[in-house]
Amino acid sequence: MDQLLRIDMGAQGGPKVTVTEPGEYEGLGGRALTSAIISKEVPPLCHPLGADNKLVIAPGLLSGTAAAMSGRLSIGCKSPLTGGIKEANAGGQPSQMIARLGYAAIVLEGKPEDGSLYKIFINKDGVKIIPDGSLKMLGNYDLVDKLKGEYGDKIGVISIGPAGEMKMSAASIACTDMEVRPTRHAGRGGVGAVMGAKAVKAIIIDDAGMKMRSPKDSKAFQEANKKWVEGIRKHPVTGQGLPTYGTNILTNVINEAGGYPTHNFMWGRFEGCTKISGETQAELENARGGEGSATHGCHRGCIIRCSGTFYDKDGQYITKQPEYETVWSHGGNCGIDDLDAIAMLDRLDDDFGLDTIEMGATVGVAMEAGLAKFGDTQGAINLVKEVGKGTPLGRILGNGAAVTGKVFGIERVPVVKGQAMPAYDPRTVQGIGVTYATSTMGADHTAGYAVTANILGVGGKVDPLKPEGQAELSRNLQIATAAVDSTGMCLFVAFAVLDQPETFQSLIDMINSFYGLKLTADDVTALGKSVLKNEKDFNLRAGFTSKHDRLPEFFKKEPLPPHDIVFNVSDKDLDSVFNW
Amino acid sequence: MDQLLRIDMGAQGGPKVTVTEPGEYEGLGGRALTSAIISKEVPPLCHPLGADNKLVIAPGLLSGTAAAMSGRLSIGCKSPLTGGIKEANAGGQPSQMIARLGYAAIVLEGKPEDGSLYKIFINKDGVKIIPDGSLKMLGNYDLVDKLKGEYGDKIGVISIGPAGEMKMSAASIACTDMEVRPTRHAGRGGVGAVMGAKAVKAIIIDDAGMKMRSPKDSKAFQEANKKWVEGIRKHPVTGQGLPTYGTNILTNVINEAGGYPTHNFMWGRFEGCTKISGETQAELENARGGEGSATHGCHRGCIIRCSGTFYDKDGQYITKQPEYETVWSHGGNCGIDDLDAIAMLDRLDDDFGLDTIEMGATVGVAMEAGLAKFGDTQGAINLVKEVGKGTPLGRILGNGAAVTGKVFGIERVPVVKGQAMPAYDPRTVQGIGVTYATSTMGADHTAGYAVTANILGVGGKVDPLKPEGQAELSRNLQIATAAVDSTGMCLFVAFAVLDQPETFQSLIDMINSFYGLKLTADDVTALGKSVLKNEKDFNLRAGFTSKHDRLPEFFKKEPLPPHDIVFNVSDKDLDSVFNW
Repeated sequence: MDQLLRIDMGAQGGPKVTVTEPGEYEGLGGRALTSAIISKEVPPLCHPLGADNKLVIAPGLLSGTAAAMSGRLSIGCKSPLTGGIKEANAGGQPSQMIARLGYAAIVLEGKPEDGSLYKIFINKDGVKIIPDGSLKMLGNYDLVDKLKGEYGDKIGVISIGPAGEMKMSAASIACTDMEVRPTRHAGRGGVGAVMGAKAVKAIIIDDAGMKMRSPKDSKAFQEANKKWVEGIRKHPVTGQGLPTYGTNILTNVINEAGGYPTHNFMWGRFEGCTKISGETQAELENARGGEGSATHGCHRGCIIRCSGTFYDKDGQYITKQPEYETVWSHGGNCGIDDLDAIAMLDRLDDDFGLDTIEMGATVGVAMEAGLAKFGDTQGAINLVKEVGKGTPLGRILGNGAAVTGKVFGIERVPVVKGQAMPAYDPRTVQGIGVTYATSTMGADHTAGYAVTANILGVGGKVDPLKPEGQAELSRNLQIATAAVDSTGMCLFVAFAVLDQPETFQSLIDMINSFYGLKLTADDVTALGKSVLKNEKDFNLRAGFTSKHDRLPEFFKKEPLPPHDIVFNVSDKDLDSVFNW
Repeated sequence: MDQLLRIDMGAQGGPKVTVTEPGEYEGLGGRALTSAIISKEVPPLCHPLGADNKLVIAPGLLSGTAAAMSGRLSIGCKSPLTGGIKEANAGGQPSQMIARLGYAAIVLEGKPEDGSLYKIFINKDGVKIIPDGSLKMLGNYDLVDKLKGEYGDKIGVISIGPAGEMKMSAASIACTDMEVRPTRHAGRGGVGAVMGAKAVKAIIIDDAGMKMRSPKDSKAFQEANKKWVEGIRKHPVTGQGLPTYGTNILTNVINEAGGYPTHNFMWGRFEGCTKISGETQAELENARGGEGSATHGCHRGCIIRCSGTFYDKDGQYITKQPEYETVWSHGGNCGIDDLDAIAMLDRLDDDFGLDTIEMGATVGVAMEAGLAKFGDTQGAINLVKEVGKGTPLGRILGNGAAVTGKVFGIERVPVVKGQAMPAYDPRTVQGIGVTYATSTMGADHTAGYAVTANILGVGGKVDPLKPEGQAELSRNLQIATAAVDSTGMCLFVAFAVLDQPETFQSLIDMINSFYGLKLTADDVTALGKSVLKNEKDFNLRAGFTSKHDRLPEFFKKEPLPPHDIVFNVSDKDLDSVFNW
């Protein structure tokens, strides 16, 4: 797995494929690779939808191997949402498949001018790029069904829905899961719009005939992987909480902590919380039965198995089990306490190809603007349907919370660098506030998930309501996350890695035995720092300053019930996060 | 004229008036005063529509005196369009009237939360702030008619239309002219949205009982003013060109130079140019007759008299004679060569309270997005009407070209710092490109009108097609303009001031004799520099860097016909503009 598959979509005479050695990018995977390529090759002031932007799709260092949990795919570009560098990542099958095909990354470059829409088919025999007008404006579900009819049901698909074709800044890129459904999304930052600008509707991957990647030292690798699996299985979060309830186990936890953003970040607790909690969701799913009611993985090799399937009351498939962030964004944030409605919104988002966090936050802002009332379930569904239709209102909403706030003249817009905040109020979880403010990605919980030490008691304890220690917490997590995001590992391994030194060591041992390296924990830290350095440097050249590492004013002025607290980490502390 | 009238619209118990001495702002007027107050008092990271922003309305140093041409009004705030500091200025009557009432500035602060809409009446007896729900969503024309019915026809009115109430980023603030019509607009940067956020629909000014302001040395002042008038009258641009044809005299000139942006900055010449030129416009207006067909001033004391009145074919008043920038933005930029349609668009903009430059550029982008065809007159009118209705499409357009481009996924958007470019293509007039790029205001021709030396042969000659000398030209003009904008003088005096040292001296003599000062030309330069320094400093604290002092990429990549030239002033040169 070390070749770069570059596809110039704007080449004269039609798209042109070049396969090259990784060269200076040798040894990089996942986010380390996407951010290195973007930082080096993309002009920071280019238009995100222009020919000079690139879309880099990279499996992690351990993707395509037997390592458990190694199926995450990193997708990088200059973000149409933030204007800065972006890495969004997703589960599903494509990461393992691309890695097995021998590609360290697929790099989409240029921009065709002829109005064609393309699909790209990649298998062991090479790459085919085919214009296919019949795919235009298909939802991800219909698209994948059509492609399965054409290419069989062993494929992995990376695709965009209508939102990406319309180049909306909230457009995601869908990856198919183990059931070949388009449910796993690289959601954030409008990566789907960049794929749309490249006029690529779908990348179909078929790894038939390819084998699992082989480690240099098989025995050591197997041993490390065994310890790795044990470590993940024994940690209460990854071994019990997530497998039992999925990510939505957090609803009750965060609500109890008073950090559950409700009614567009107006309150910290939602009265309808128990109706949409993970516990209720599991009960409902179990009652409705179906083979998918038990949790399962989103990709081959997953042992946490926090995914599930959501059926309606008649047993019809609606969507994958909505994740905590989605249940929050379309639920409590909009005053909606109806799991069926939330599942329908999740399905619509996945089908149109939209980031559920951005869309839920956007509907919240739209509700503040009076386009629907908080709690108006049908109103929320109608708003998201507008996006799929591409009406002017849908175009506004599909460009995210910041644009929606601007267009409707709303002051309370929960974004940083133009990207909507996820499901933790930064006033009650001040550590995550530091991550929202300072991440190179815009507001992003996965960039440095301080909820761990702030709320969950994982990786130490830092009082969530006080500013002390938050900058250091966020810094360490951001560095560690940047490294984990480069391995292809699901970020949830961090729970076990943070609490169990031997589990962290087994991860390092896997990398070392696979590549014949002798990395230490310090080297992993150094990798994380180098990723962040590349990203920060790109953003600096794109015009970002410390002034962009700030939360919107209302978090510093409006005390959040029930703790009646404002975000009070100092600017000085925020500016210290990237000093190491 | 040295008191500050501060009105806290968000005070507990209702709006509260405070009149204070100018203190540290002593001796400042116009833009120098607005930018000093904004830079010092407004938190640079505040939300432009929030309580912390301020709207500062300031006559110039010589406003309200007998000095010819001294009726410009500066309006400053943090801009909702650019996110940076803003000074937009307008002609009309209010500047002279506010100055005669003894106010150096009206400062609107805070933000009421009760949903009321207010009018503010100011006369010699003081200030009344009255909630008046009957004014909601009135167009500027109906509004002024209503206020005339109530307060008589000797008033001056500063007001917003529906666009300002809807807090659109392209919303202007209207000032009434000598005919008490709302035709003179502080157009740029969304100042109207800030007035809307303060919930102030109109400021009615009645200067009955007040006298012209008296100079310290009347005789010297009169002598200086006489020379001033002579100087303006003898210069060919201010004495002949502008009085005869109005600003639209530029259409043929700029088109001939190949710098007339056509079809959203696709070409540098417009084939329908002669149909909408100043010469054709004057002919049409003369043919249609009416007392206003001759040019006249937009405010008392104007001797250039570049304004006019536009009647339809039946002799019905439509609007003031559309200015060059408006004729271009709604005309050639949109492929429209129909003066009646352009006049109707101007009227709609004025009535809704919209910046004609921003709106024309926005319609151009919308046409590029396929919402109407270039040249589709009725399509353009319909689009602007949407803005007045406040439909979702109207909300998009009313927030300007950058938002429209983003919402519709368009790459070719002619903005800098989010503000649309005026009527000179920066590829053919490279000096104005330097001003667009580097001005603290976003793309703004009035900030440093390099068209002078580039095209008009005024104030020297600098080859418009070459990068050499453009940075220095723009720097000197930006400094001079910042000073002129502080005097209350119409910027058109610059033609005479640049070419005739004795006319410049007479301006200094007027200030000196009026205030009892001994300023030199160097002091005037120092004033201009200090204004720019305040503005630059605010923008720096708001997060702007040199990376924001750049033109959109397509100006550097797409050669503009007929000269087939790109913008080629180096980044280094751009970054030198503020080094002095």
